[in-house]
Amino acid sequence: MSTTEADTVNDTAGRWGQRPGTREGWLERAQDVAALLATDAVARDRAGATPHAEVRLLKESGLVTLLGPVEHGGGGQTWSTAYEVIREVAKGDGSIGQLLGYHYLWAWAVRLVGTDAQIDAVERLYTESDLFFGGAVNPRDSDVVITDEGDEIVYTGRKSFSTGSKVSDLTVLEGVLEGTDKHIFAIVPSDQEAIVYGDDWDNLGQRLTESGSVEINGVRVPWASAAGYVDKEFQPLVYNTLNTPTIQLVFANFYLGIAQGALDAATSYTKEKTRAWPFGGDDKDSVTEEFYVLDAYGDLQAKLWAAEALVDRAGERIEGLLHAERASVTAEQRGAAAVLIAAAKERIVATGLEIATKIFEVTGARATSNSTGLDIYWRNLRTHSLHDPVAYKRVEVGRYTLLGEIPEPTWYT
Amino acid sequence: MSTTEADTVNDTAGRWGQRPGTREGWLERAQDVAALLATDAVARDRAGATPHAEVRLLKESGLVTLLGPVEHGGGGQTWSTAYEVIREVAKGDGSIGQLLGYHYLWAWAVRLVGTDAQIDAVERLYTESDLFFGGAVNPRDSDVVITDEGDEIVYTGRKSFSTGSKVSDLTVLEGVLEGTDKHIFAIVPSDQEAIVYGDDWDNLGQRLTESGSVEINGVRVPWASAAGYVDKEFQPLVYNTLNTPTIQLVFANFYLGIAQGALDAATSYTKEKTRAWPFGGDDKDSVTEEFYVLDAYGDLQAKLWAAEALVDRAGERIEGLLHAERASVTAEQRGAAAVLIAAAKERIVATGLEIATKIFEVTGARATSNSTGLDIYWRNLRTHSLHDPVAYKRVEVGRYTLLGEIPEPTWYT
Amino acid sequence: MSTTEADTVNDTAGRWGQRPGTREGWLERAQDVAALLATDAVARDRAGATPHAEVRLLKESGLVTLLGPVEHGGGGQTWSTAYEVIREVAKGDGSIGQLLGYHYLWAWAVRLVGTDAQIDAVERLYTESDLFFGGAVNPRDSDVVITDEGDEIVYTGRKSFSTGSKVSDLTVLEGVLEGTDKHIFAIVPSDQEAIVYGDDWDNLGQRLTESGSVEINGVRVPWASAAGYVDKEFQPLVYNTLNTPTIQLVFANFYLGIAQGALDAATSYTKEKTRAWPFGGDDKDSVTEEFYVLDAYGDLQAKLWAAEALVDRAGERIEGLLHAERASVTAEQRGAAAVLIAAAKERIVATGLEIATKIFEVTGARATSNSTGLDIYWRNLRTHSLHDPVAYKRVEVGRYTLLGEIPEPTWYT
Amino acid sequence: MSTTEADTVNDTAGRWGQRPGTREGWLERAQDVAALLATDAVARDRAGATPHAEVRLLKESGLVTLLGPVEHGGGGQTWSTAYEVIREVAKGDGSIGQLLGYHYLWAWAVRLVGTDAQIDAVERLYTESDLFFGGAVNPRDSDVVITDEGDEIVYTGRKSFSTGSKVSDLTVLEGVLEGTDKHIFAIVPSDQEAIVYGDDWDNLGQRLTESGSVEINGVRVPWASAAGYVDKEFQPLVYNTLNTPTIQLVFANFYLGIAQGALDAATSYTKEKTRAWPFGGDDKDSVTEEFYVLDAYGDLQAKLWAAEALVDRAGERIEGLLHAERASVTAEQRGAAAVLIAAAKERIVATGLEIATKIFEVTGARATSNSTGLDIYWRNLRTHSLHDPVAYKRVEVGRYTLLGEIPEPTWYT
Repeated sequence: MSTTEADTVNDTAGRWGQRPGTREGWLERAQDVAALLATDAVARDRAGATPHAEVRLLKESGLVTLLGPVEHGGGGQTWSTAYEVIREVAKGDGSIGQLLGYHYLWAWAVRLVGTDAQIDAVERLYTESDLFFGGAVNPRDSDVVITDEGDEIVYTGRKSFSTGSKVSDLTVLEGVLEGTDKHIFAIVPSDQEAIVYGDDWDNLGQRLTESGSVEINGVRVPWASAAGYVDKEFQPLVYNTLNTPTIQLVFANFYLGIAQGALDAATSYTKEKTRAWPFGGDDKDSVTEEFYVLDAYGDLQAKLWAAEALVDRAGERIEGLLHAERASVTAEQRGAAAVLIAAAKERIVATGLEIATKIFEVTGARATSNSTGLDIYWRNLRTHSLHDPVAYKRVEVGRYTLLGEIPEPTWYT
Repeated sequence: MSTTEADTVNDTAGRWGQRPGTREGWLERAQDVAALLATDAVARDRAGATPHAEVRLLKESGLVTLLGPVEHGGGGQTWSTAYEVIREVAKGDGSIGQLLGYHYLWAWAVRLVGTDAQIDAVERLYTESDLFFGGAVNPRDSDVVITDEGDEIVYTGRKSFSTGSKVSDLTVLEGVLEGTDKHIFAIVPSDQEAIVYGDDWDNLGQRLTESGSVEINGVRVPWASAAGYVDKEFQPLVYNTLNTPTIQLVFANFYLGIAQGALDAATSYTKEKTRAWPFGGDDKDSVTEEFYVLDAYGDLQAKLWAAEALVDRAGERIEGLLHAERASVTAEQRGAAAVLIAAAKERIVATGLEIATKIFEVTGARATSNSTGLDIYWRNLRTHSLHDPVAYKRVEVGRYTLLGEIPEPTWYT
Repeated sequence: MSTTEADTVNDTAGRWGQRPGTREGWLERAQDVAALLATDAVARDRAGATPHAEVRLLKESGLVTLLGPVEHGGGGQTWSTAYEVIREVAKGDGSIGQLLGYHYLWAWAVRLVGTDAQIDAVERLYTESDLFFGGAVNPRDSDVVITDEGDEIVYTGRKSFSTGSKVSDLTVLEGVLEGTDKHIFAIVPSDQEAIVYGDDWDNLGQRLTESGSVEINGVRVPWASAAGYVDKEFQPLVYNTLNTPTIQLVFANFYLGIAQGALDAATSYTKEKTRAWPFGGDDKDSVTEEFYVLDAYGDLQAKLWAAEALVDRAGERIEGLLHAERASVTAEQRGAAAVLIAAAKERIVATGLEIATKIFEVTGARATSNSTGLDIYWRNLRTHSLHDPVAYKRVEVGRYTLLGEIPEPTWYT
Repeated sequence: MSTTEADTVNDTAGRWGQRPGTREGWLERAQDVAALLATDAVARDRAGATPHAEVRLLKESGLVTLLGPVEHGGGGQTWSTAYEVIREVAKGDGSIGQLLGYHYLWAWAVRLVGTDAQIDAVERLYTESDLFFGGAVNPRDSDVVITDEGDEIVYTGRKSFSTGSKVSDLTVLEGVLEGTDKHIFAIVPSDQEAIVYGDDWDNLGQRLTESGSVEINGVRVPWASAAGYVDKEFQPLVYNTLNTPTIQLVFANFYLGIAQGALDAATSYTKEKTRAWPFGGDDKDSVTEEFYVLDAYGDLQAKLWAAEALVDRAGERIEGLLHAERASVTAEQRGAAAVLIAAAKERIVATGLEIATKIFEVTGARATSNSTGLDIYWRNLRTHSLHDPVAYKRVEVGRYTLLGEIPEPTWYT
């Protein structure tokens, strides 16, 4: 939480040696990255600068290629590892955990909806060059229109939110083909004149995610790059709709990381700075003898472990689908996974907010100083956890519990 | 919950074919037993008779031998399966889930503290003959004294609680050797004149567990049967102290089963009998369109899934120790597992009580009829979850979280 | 909670002297009645006999006339005192608190809808003779039909619930005039052949309220007794619709009494019987040094005081309307009071259930013995608090908070 | 929340006419002040400037004289009105509500401990000239020493926190007479060289309270101004110790105001900007048809009303003591009031934090924009509610509930 350590996010060149070859190695790498990010996370949050250095860190450390094929130099890991890596990074910096998590989804988007040739091309491209993905896919406002100009399609419109696109190499664009209800995804260079960033993300938390609006002023894409389209037609699979549960569990994982980061920061503070209450009726040498402090930490930790165990369980479930033969994934499997993910998300949101609020009660009044900055966890969690109403997540779980019904795939479920 | 099905607990002779050979088979067997128990669980709870038929069911179905060595005809399963079997049985009948769970611990007690020869003898004995264990080991009141009479030791005293002993074949006795602080365990026949049951278990829940007091009027045991004693001396191992975390997780598993049973019973009732609220401001055809009902079910299910995931995680942890080389288990491993188990227990107690109370809000006023008996879950959970103060479980977790300290082994930790 | 005291509910003849003349006197009287009821409340609950003795106690003590005019020998008290009396009695016995609370509403029914002449006649009748009211007014099932036979109307049908009618002198009947949507109330003798009790109230809690079904086989009532009807027509006032908020706050008050009774019983038990936890890491002489016990009592008491303060505030509000000039009460006043009452009820239900569950955690495992019977509070609260879905109460409060809208009067709002 | 209205805190000169003569008038005045403060509360919080204009507003509006004697031009109101005025102001700006609340306590300090002559002098002084009080009385660190220099005493030392002193006319100083354990209070001009402000209050919330440290470099005070001292001796009364419960209830009242402000701001936002969820399964025209939104508002409002009712009840209790004959106040009365206040504080802290977190769930993702600033309520509440551990407040209530024991007076109880 301090900047006294020599290393910071801006000074990591040459730090990283060979890329890890195992799951454990990647997790260790993620922890190293998180430790670096944590040193000045509060200060960078306040400064609110565009996170170029942070994205460079994700690239140089190799984390951006975690899911990339080994043959192109990628990590070749599976999604359960990706989820854990997101979580680790979010412990150090919630914003950067989010950016990395979104990147993994965008990097996988071509697998979700692309053709085999597209998959091969995109994965080679991004893996070989450590490219970073952003997206302009906010679906609630259908305000990007695609026109068909023969060999090309052209995207025009505006997205209210486009997380990470501004600091990315590649952007996943989404729009609706004019006169139809066909959504078409394409991967385009982020740095082009036809994409103009609003730079209007000034929100309570997750401040370094560059989640502002973007104008799409005629981005041209060859039909051949329209993900999954062959002869201008798309052959839908259930697998295509895994995008929503996959990203919803990305959310849950960086929420979990933020909550763990909060608890870690609090324990450090309590041990180093908090004093026993002198009016408690007996003489305590240390705050660590305060029953209420131990009770509260136990309460919060138990809840966090329960949420974590459910997030992990959901990760195993969706991983089984994401790495399966695409055509084999059924609507029932997808639905059951989505419900489990909904439950996991609901749990970590409730648990994380409670932790982020109550850590102050075990650190004390002086922990509210802005130099400490313990509020960053509440701000980060509170902001992103509003992505879509958690009440409807409970209702999805409830409908499944009561009636055995799985939810219809939407942009949020 | 009704007795309309032909089969009941009292009429299961000849029902069971060959014993299962796989984990899945055993779980299925447990579900079959639970289904039988569920048919008249409320009626049997009200009657409050000694559960002879229920124990016979556990024996005939083979569940009592789940952990027994294959070479003696046992299931040869591991503890994670045992925990899941306890949970399944408790879904149908919390009392019987508890009896089975305690049985597994007593059956494993010889492994915890016995010599190799004792282990072999006891496991053969109980596995070959489907014997059922009870215990008289309530440790809080050290009121059973052991006298050393040369080749024999003699137990005399009283235990306030002795779950299952009355309906068991073998009882695990515990006492303190006179003039020392040595606790000695021994396994003795339950049906002997020197053991007199108080028949005084008349409590709110878990009514069929025969948890009343017992008088021990000079039970004679050869020194050779004093578990783990060689030449009247005991060589302690950390492994010996796994009894407490193991049984604490037994508790958590039958709590979990009870809570799942509650949620299952509620969903059935809601679907079959509960009506939409006619004054809700719109016309609903079915209670399943009530937002508040779906919301509540989702809330309770998400919490239960989180608790379940943590209970399972704790089960994997302690299983790793229980099936390890005995001498290899370290205090640190034991302590970390105990903390995780404390957290799991705390979570399922809180979650289970909430479920057991709130199911009424999604079933409605008529669900309070005594013919329905939906209160059995709250009564069962509320009663046993007071075994030891859950506040101290939180404190153990808190001390570990804040200070990295593991708890001292006690009879409750 | 024990029956060791000489006085019991069955032996109170001649105990009561002159009737109180002040609010304080009536509250003291209520406390005396509650103390008597408390001596064997658990035993009477288990026996489940028809509460003839209990109703006699309410009559002999004069409590039934609390709201009756002074000129006829009544107490002449106002509703805020009635609410507090209900609460006091419910501390000792939740069922009897409910019976008394319903009685007060039925006794006031003639003021709610009757003509001046009817008011005078009914109040004189019941006050002079200490008569007790029951009701057959369960409105959800409109299954009592009234036929117009010239000078008389005749009630025929069935009510699923008719609290207290069986042990009452007078019953408030409600039905719908055939071929119209006119509800007509009338007060009739309870002991007549045309009223047949189902004796089918066998529910989890509030077991002594005789809330079973009733068949109405042609109860004849002169048109002159049709409450509020003049020349077979009814002149509606907002005041008529105060019945629902008034009875909803009756509910809240006996819930409050039950919750206070629970906390009182728990403190007695803890002080007399509960032991400090011997494994807490320090030597405590008494359970009263346990931080977790004091913390829990403080938590529950603070919540209960908050609920009580809101219930009282709501009582002052509705009292202002109930004792106002009938024609002066506006829909807005009625609605605002109903919303406040909805909030009060929601709070005491949530708080009371939490108290009734958690008292066991501060009394301990042995407090689950059936001879102690601490579960009576949870059973009583859980049962009646399902009268109508508390979720809709929250929604009413929410609509008022967000939009300033008052709820439409219904049988539940 | 916007600055579009013409009036702001900086432009209120000449706005106020005659001072109110009634309780209702003062409450209206407080609401007017709050409305002014609310127009730019978020902007002023961000700017973090010293609140000179805000204090001027409190003076010009007359609110600072609310408790002052009528004969000196004061409002002559009682404490229950003061509490409500604090609450109203805090609705518009939590910081200024705190400043005003502390002012009331400091203005009353002379009544708590002074002689009759001192009371008369101080009340005349501050009332006639609309003077504003601050304090340097943070008691946890006893680091201001008083030396006796014959006719004068001299204060020297440092206080970590000195709310409002920097913007005040008069400061209440507290220190310990060297070589004794006598605490001496005195009222001194705030603007003097011997008082040096640290300007180091940079915390999460309540940012405009100037609560930073202060150095006391030899402030000279005549013995005659040593509050309550006659001939260098102090005659203690129970009444002196009312300072703690009185200020603790000041806390509870501005917490309540902050929470009400949060709920008010949320309802405005929801109605103006929040959209119905388009994927809810039915077509809703407006967010006000969302069950979950109405449910959540109802839940939060009900809890807030309950907390408010308890805060008011506690206010009536302490007011009875504060305005009583000083010598008549007993330790038992003081203790019972302190317990009720502890409970009220505990309730509003828990309730307020829940409201301040959950308002986002009923306003939605876009409400996290910093231009909206809805986080101010959580920051304000979270910061000050750590003043002293709320766990010990619960314990005080618990000890009173269980044992009937009142707390010992301390600087926090």
